Amino acid sequence: MATMKDIADRLGISLSTVSKGLNGGQDISDSLRQTILDTAVEMGYQNRKAKRQDRRRIAVFIENMDYEDADDFGYEIVLGFRKASFRENWGVSVIPLTRDLQRRQSYDAYMLQEQYSGAFFMGISPEDPWSAQMEETRIPTVLLDNSAAPNPQVCTLATDSDAGIEMAVSHLAALGHEKIAFLDGSAGSMVSDKRMLAYLNAMAAHKLAIDPQLAVYGYFVAEAAPYHVPGFLSAGVTAILCGNDLIASGVIECCKKEGFAVPEDISVIGFDDVPMAERLDPPLTTVRQHRNALGQMAYYALYALINQVPVSSTCLRPDLVLRATTAIAKPRVALRRNDDKDSVAYVNPDLYLKTLRQRNLW
Amino acid sequence: MATMKDIADRLGISLSTVSKGLNGGQDISDSLRQTILDTAVEMGYQNRKAKRQDRRRIAVFIENMDYEDADDFGYEIVLGFRKASFRENWGVSVIPLTRDLQRRQSYDAYMLQEQYSGAFFMGISPEDPWSAQMEETRIPTVLLDNSAAPNPQVCTLATDSDAGIEMAVSHLAALGHEKIAFLDGSAGSMVSDKRMLAYLNAMAAHKLAIDPQLAVYGYFVAEAAPYHVPGFLSAGVTAILCGNDLIASGVIECCKKEGFAVPEDISVIGFDDVPMAERLDPPLTTVRQHRNALGQMAYYALYALINQVPVSSTCLRPDLVLRATTAIAKPRVALRRNDDKDSVAYVNPDLYLKTLRQRNLW
Repeated sequence: MATMKDIADRLGISLSTVSKGLNGGQDISDSLRQTILDTAVEMGYQNRKAKRQDRRRIAVFIENMDYEDADDFGYEIVLGFRKASFRENWGVSVIPLTRDLQRRQSYDAYMLQEQYSGAFFMGISPEDPWSAQMEETRIPTVLLDNSAAPNPQVCTLATDSDAGIEMAVSHLAALGHEKIAFLDGSAGSMVSDKRMLAYLNAMAAHKLAIDPQLAVYGYFVAEAAPYHVPGFLSAGVTAILCGNDLIASGVIECCKKEGFAVPEDISVIGFDDVPMAERLDPPLTTVRQHRNALGQMAYYALYALINQVPVSSTCLRPDLVLRATTAIAKPRVALRRNDDKDSVAYVNPDLYLKTLRQRNLW
Repeated sequence: MATMKDIADRLGISLSTVSKGLNGGQDISDSLRQTILDTAVEMGYQNRKAKRQDRRRIAVFIENMDYEDADDFGYEIVLGFRKASFRENWGVSVIPLTRDLQRRQSYDAYMLQEQYSGAFFMGISPEDPWSAQMEETRIPTVLLDNSAAPNPQVCTLATDSDAGIEMAVSHLAALGHEKIAFLDGSAGSMVSDKRMLAYLNAMAAHKLAIDPQLAVYGYFVAEAAPYHVPGFLSAGVTAILCGNDLIASGVIECCKKEGFAVPEDISVIGFDDVPMAERLDPPLTTVRQHRNALGQMAYYALYALINQVPVSSTCLRPDLVLRATTAIAKPRVALRRNDDKDSVAYVNPDLYLKTLRQRNLW
């Protein structure tokens, strides 16, 4: 492992200048500090001070996710992370992941400069400058709902979408529903894709027909509902599964507006169980992500990585929370004939998803 | 949660008798003790003594796996588990998982009686009496290389076979190998199935033809080699990938006996990197399972479950350890014509595996 002396030799500067550069000393230019940090990262230097028990620090980066209010999706995750890490005397900094921050410095240089031992990312998009750096980073890093870079320092964490959607479809099938629509979140999001595939798999497993017009991507907002729900209703669905609770809230509103009662006419199921889910009218039946547990597990996985355990993925089990938006299926007649030749049962969902994508149906 | 008083009331016996039954008191018949334990399990009683810091105990169950000698597969796993749990003052008992033990008592009754807070299973077969109980157990439990029961108390732990086999096939492909055989472990083992599917996927990903006669199940022993290697050689393979290091040791012997040099004529890759792998002649190139890290991660996952985090699966990244059994492919002419009509490229490996199974080719 490289020492400060190695860095000084490489750059032809004094040891004390290197020390100033690495430890936040004042009497040094910004550009020289950056050169020292970049060289340190390149040479694999690790700051030993960062390992001292009384200075152990980890970072939580948050992007596109609210977490400051108890109703926010990220709130309980941060709380769970703090709870688990607190017991072992880690200092935790919560940092908004801005493009500006990422453009200013490489991920490893930033982490070295700030003397963090590792990080948990709640959201990072593939377009982010630091996203590509996940393949090479030497910093122990846990990513929420992201695909894993082939790097022993990086672990992905997620709630098991397959299990969650399967529980939801199984519950609806047991209530006699056969025509179940799925209004997913944004196309191209890893979470949306996983849930779409899970829906197709679950429908196939329960021998229910898959209709491409009833399995659509929207956006992770309530406002997506009006674009799709009227079509679902006229196609004769009796249940609508949603990519998250926000979408479900819009779906319920939309059903009411169209003159359909929830759950008497149409059953609705959400995903996440954010706090507002139980305050909806009627209270939402939904797949619960254990957000506090996700935060705790993020810490355990990060702790494993910091201890050189090359954990690559870890998954949490969701629950189906039964409230008041599902009921026994009420037989309905489709208002329009379904002329789609592609409505087929028992397909291979994986291939089917690919085919649909290629044909740009979504 | 049920109390000792609840158990006493249900059975119509005294509180002190219940206490004797639960805490290993002497003055009580075996059958009454069993009734008390079974009732306690049924009523969801949890022994609070087991939670006291100075008495925290966890169990490691081992079946069909040697672990007492440093050369044994299980040795480092147990060591890693002990290392990680020791820091937090857990007492660890290593217990052979015999059929006799499992027949004597249910899993939950045994764990309650012995006051363990959780367990790590290194091997449990589907035929084991306790295996079916994994669906209902209330004991935090981590299973190595097993499929997960749909139970929030149970987590599975494994090395990522896909990543390991992909690294091996990718290495061979880079050396110019095209005809790569796979001699897997026992059919019906979850690990074998995962590795077979990983092999089929990796071959397809590298656009290499899959030949059913070159992708076979054997057993996880060196003695499996003579049954398959001569056939591979006469079919003109230049590389043989093996389900584990033991199989690879047999394959190397067999190649030599048939007059083929390793790696000059035939490249060989194992899986696991057990200590004997580097003592083979030549030293074996193999996919390393980080066994010490597996043991550590087993503890972290168990700790998460004990803290009510419903982790369902966790996966570790393997490495490819390059030693001396792989080399650039030497062009070879097959000694027999391959008449198998089933030799096809670019198939869907998942469907292909199913088809082959149905046709009992393996």
